[in-house]
Formats: sequence, structure tokens, C-alpha cells
Amino acid sequence: MENKKLSERMLSGEMYNDLSAELVQRREQAVFLTNEYNATYGKPKEIREALLRELLKHIGDSVHFEPNFRCEFGFNISIGNNFFANFDCIMLDGNHITIGDNVLFGPRVGLYTANHALDPQERVMGGCYARPITIGDNVWIGAGVHIMGGVTIGQNSVIGAGSVITKDIPENVIAAGVPCKVIREITDKDKTGFLP
Amino acid sequence: MENKKLSERMLSGEMYNDLSAELVQRREQAVFLTNEYNATYGKPKEIREALLRELLKHIGDSVHFEPNFRCEFGFNISIGNNFFANFDCIMLDGNHITIGDNVLFGPRVGLYTANHALDPQERVMGGCYARPITIGDNVWIGAGVHIMGGVTIGQNSVIGAGSVITKDIPENVIAAGVPCKVIREITDKDKTGFLP
Amino acid sequence: MENKKLSERMLSGEMYNDLSAELVQRREQAVFLTNEYNATYGKPKEIREALLRELLKHIGDSVHFEPNFRCEFGFNISIGNNFFANFDCIMLDGNHITIGDNVLFGPRVGLYTANHALDPQERVMGGCYARPITIGDNVWIGAGVHIMGGVTIGQNSVIGAGSVITKDIPENVIAAGVPCKVIREITDKDKTGFLP
Repeated sequence: MENKKLSERMLSGEMYNDLSAELVQRREQAVFLTNEYNATYGKPKEIREALLRELLKHIGDSVHFEPNFRCEFGFNISIGNNFFANFDCIMLDGNHITIGDNVLFGPRVGLYTANHALDPQERVMGGCYARPITIGDNVWIGAGVHIMGGVTIGQNSVIGAGSVITKDIPENVIAAGVPCKVIREITDKDKTGFLP
Repeated sequence: MENKKLSERMLSGEMYNDLSAELVQRREQAVFLTNEYNATYGKPKEIREALLRELLKHIGDSVHFEPNFRCEFGFNISIGNNFFANFDCIMLDGNHITIGDNVLFGPRVGLYTANHALDPQERVMGGCYARPITIGDNVWIGAGVHIMGGVTIGQNSVIGAGSVITKDIPENVIAAGVPCKVIREITDKDKTGFLP
Repeated sequence: MENKKLSERMLSGEMYNDLSAELVQRREQAVFLTNEYNATYGKPKEIREALLRELLKHIGDSVHFEPNFRCEFGFNISIGNNFFANFDCIMLDGNHITIGDNVLFGPRVGLYTANHALDPQERVMGGCYARPITIGDNVWIGAGVHIMGGVTIGQNSVIGAGSVITKDIPENVIAAGVPCKVIREITDKDKTGFLP
């Protein structure tokens, strides 16, 4: 484990030590910054987005979290334009979390890239590995959905409330359940005439 | 869309524009007021219920939310007498949320009247519709339950923890699961002798 | 109901009155103390663990909750050494909650010892009963898991995200689902070589 930087190990999906002093300190910093972000609710957009730019790897235009947003580190999270997360979003970003444009999260959505080791001895000693999460453009994640590490959700798809997503979801579908499964495709019949 | 007031459109169940400046502002006001309500925990009942009366459409006597209560607007929420919601209740009230007397919520219960459009283009442009939620007298909703728009839960019923309620639940039953289904009726055999 | 102290009734699993003034006051105290604990995030370990020792029945060395921790009373909660709970843990401790050494909780884990009466009249009058929860050494509970009263989780086991645990889980297994069921045993094949 000596020859690779901790951050490289994490992003490569290899086992890393979750208890390392560096990670403990980075988690604290993320809580301080998200506390500040949550406490500035209602302040001008520019002030709040500046805090997000400090905390996260990248954000586009118009990125908004209703209170309280929480994340593990922040520095592995990239979010596109026009993102809205409803109340109490949690992101554990031991690996990359990449979110496209025009994505909507219902309340209490959770993204968890990291897993502890399954072996109890390894787990107790801090053994962890993390896999990336990718969410395509125009996706809507319903309330209380849990998204596991390694998952990609294709563009335009909609995830039903309370789902637990353990495998990739293709684009242009409605999916739901524990574990989350595709229910049907989204088609032109879903247009309501809202747009002229 | 021009000839109807936004609030009428929302309550009628028709598509409305979730991104309208009026709704964005009303959401902010709801966060400010719920922040104030949550911060006055432990203050006299009269002070806290006065805040709820300002925020919500109607409350009866003895209405209490453990911290943190969150809602989208507040003005579509009516709650009867003797209501207790445990920690971290969330209500999205784009349409009416009507709660009877003597209702109990476990921790992390969520009520979501609003749905985004399924069509991705409509969704990106703010297309939304909302349907009412009605909860009868004496209902107990277990921890972490998600209740979708359009749902009515009959009086006296009990919902198991972690359920996702997508369809009406009749009165006097125990129901649970994802999606939530009736398990059995509640009968006099469920009396324990607690009351003389 | 006259001859037994309220706390004895609660710990015995008998029906008790959830609306008693004593319990209402104790719940308030727990919110005040957890508010203080959550607000001291980042302060020295000794200060924060002293608050936990005031709030809880027992804690070992290195017990940490990410914000916000919530509990109903606190005085029935015992936690061993090296405990880490990620964001937004909730424990309702009307009866004993006993957690072993080296236990990890993902975000939004909930433990609920208490149940309201199923009979609506008894429920409205405050009828409740509570059963203990026991979690063995080296257990990892995934994100958003709900654990019901009466449940014991055996040592070394791992619970998948979003599970609802209504029955005992044996030791050395992976379990998941709603309701939570054993998926497989954890064996030496799960070792990754993380430890020398």
C-alpha cells in the first residue's frame, strides 16, 4: 500500500484505509463547509454557489441544495447545470460522483460510493473501497432513493421513491423497487402538452 | 396556461411550472419559517403553535413536530388535533395534505404530493403536477414511510416502517412493504387491556 | 398499572403510557443534549464524548456520530468501543439498545425499540410497548436501514442499504431487503488481502 497516494488508491477502486488521519480531517472540513452552505440558505445565489465551488470538484450554473446537504469529502463531486436537490441530500464521495445537466433529486436522496470490507477483520482495521456513481442528463431521482457505488443511471430516466439502486439503469426508463428494476420505457405518449 | 391562477392549476392536478418565481420564493419562506419553528424547540407550546398557524393552512390543538420539520410551502397543509410527528418529517404540499385527529408519524416520514413530468423535455422546463394526500383519524405511520400524491389512508390504519405507499390504504388495517400492501385487518383481538 | 415504576414497565415490554409528562420531559432533554452534541462537531473528542456520557447509558472509547444524531431518551443506549455512525442516525430507546464493539452505521440508520398499540383507542390514549435491540461486535449496518424492536443482529454481519429488519439476523452473514433476509454467509473468500 506504500507506493500509491491515498487518493489514487481510492479512485482506482482498490482497498484503502478509511481511518487514515487525512480522511478523518477531510470529512471534518466537509461538515464545516456544508454547515456553512446550509446556514446561508436564502442568501444570494452567488454567495452560496461560491461555497459549493470551494467544496465540490465542479458545479455548473444554478446548482441548489435545499437544507441540509451533507457529503463525505466533496472533492470528488461534479454537477452540471440546473441541478436541484430537495431536502437532506447525502453524498459519500470516496470515488467520483458525476451528475449531468438538468438533474432533479427528491428529498432524502443518498449516493454512496464507498463500501466497507466484507471481512470483519479487514473492516475493523478500516478496509474500504469506493466505486464511482454517474447520473446522466435530465434524470429525476425520487424521494428517499439509495444509489450504490458503481452505478450509472442513463439520461432522461426516472427513479421511483424509496428505491435501492444496486445496478445500472438504462436511459429513458422508469425504474423502481428494492432492488430497483426497470418498469417501462418513457415514450412520446408521456408528453402532456405542457410545452407548446 | 394563461387564464388560471397558478394556485388553482396546482390544486386542480393540472401541469404547472415548478420553476415559477412565485413558487421559488414561497419555498424560501417555508424554509425560513420551519427553521424558526425547529429552532424554538422547548419553547412554550403557544409560541410554537403560533408559528405553525402562520406556516400551515390549519392546525388543531396539540400539533407537534420533533426537529427538523420541513415542508415545501405549508399553505396546503391541514392537521387535526393531537398530532405528533417524530424526527425529520418532510411534506411537499403542492396540493392539499389533509391529516385527521390523533395521527402519529414515526421518524423520517415523507409526504410528496408533487410529481415532475415524465417526459424529459417537459420536466426540464419545470413541468409538474400535484395530487392531494389524505390521512384519516387515528392513523399511525411507521418510521421512514414514503407517501405519494393521490393517496388516501383510511382511519385507524397502521403502516409498517420503510413502506412506500403508492395506492389508497383502507381503514382499520395493517399495511406494509414496497409497494405498501394490506397485511391484515385490525380487530378487537389487538386490544391488550391497556385501557380499563 | 399503579404498582410498577414507569421505567420498569417500559423495560419489561409491557404497555406503558407514551404521553406521560415524565416521558415528554425526558424527550425534550434528549433533544437539547443532542442539539448540543451536534453543535460541537469538530470540538475535541473529550468534550464531545463527555456530552455522550451525559446523554447515554454507556459508551466505550471512540464513539462518534456525524451530524445530526437524534435519540428519544438516550438513557437506554449502550455503545461499545470504536463506534462510527454516519449522518442522521436516529435511535428510539424506549427499551435497551445495546451495540457491541467496532460497529459501523451508514447514513440515516434508524433503530426503533418502541411500537404504538395496534388498537386505535389504546393508541390514541398513549398505549405503547418497547422491545430491546442488540447489535453484535463488528457489525456494519448500511445506509437507510430501519431496525425494529426485538431484533438482535449477530456479530460480523453486514446489512444492505435500505433494508427493514423485523427479525433476528444471525452472525457472519450478509442480509438485505424489505423485509431483510439473509443472502449468504461471509467466509474467508471475502478477504481481499488488505491486511498482511
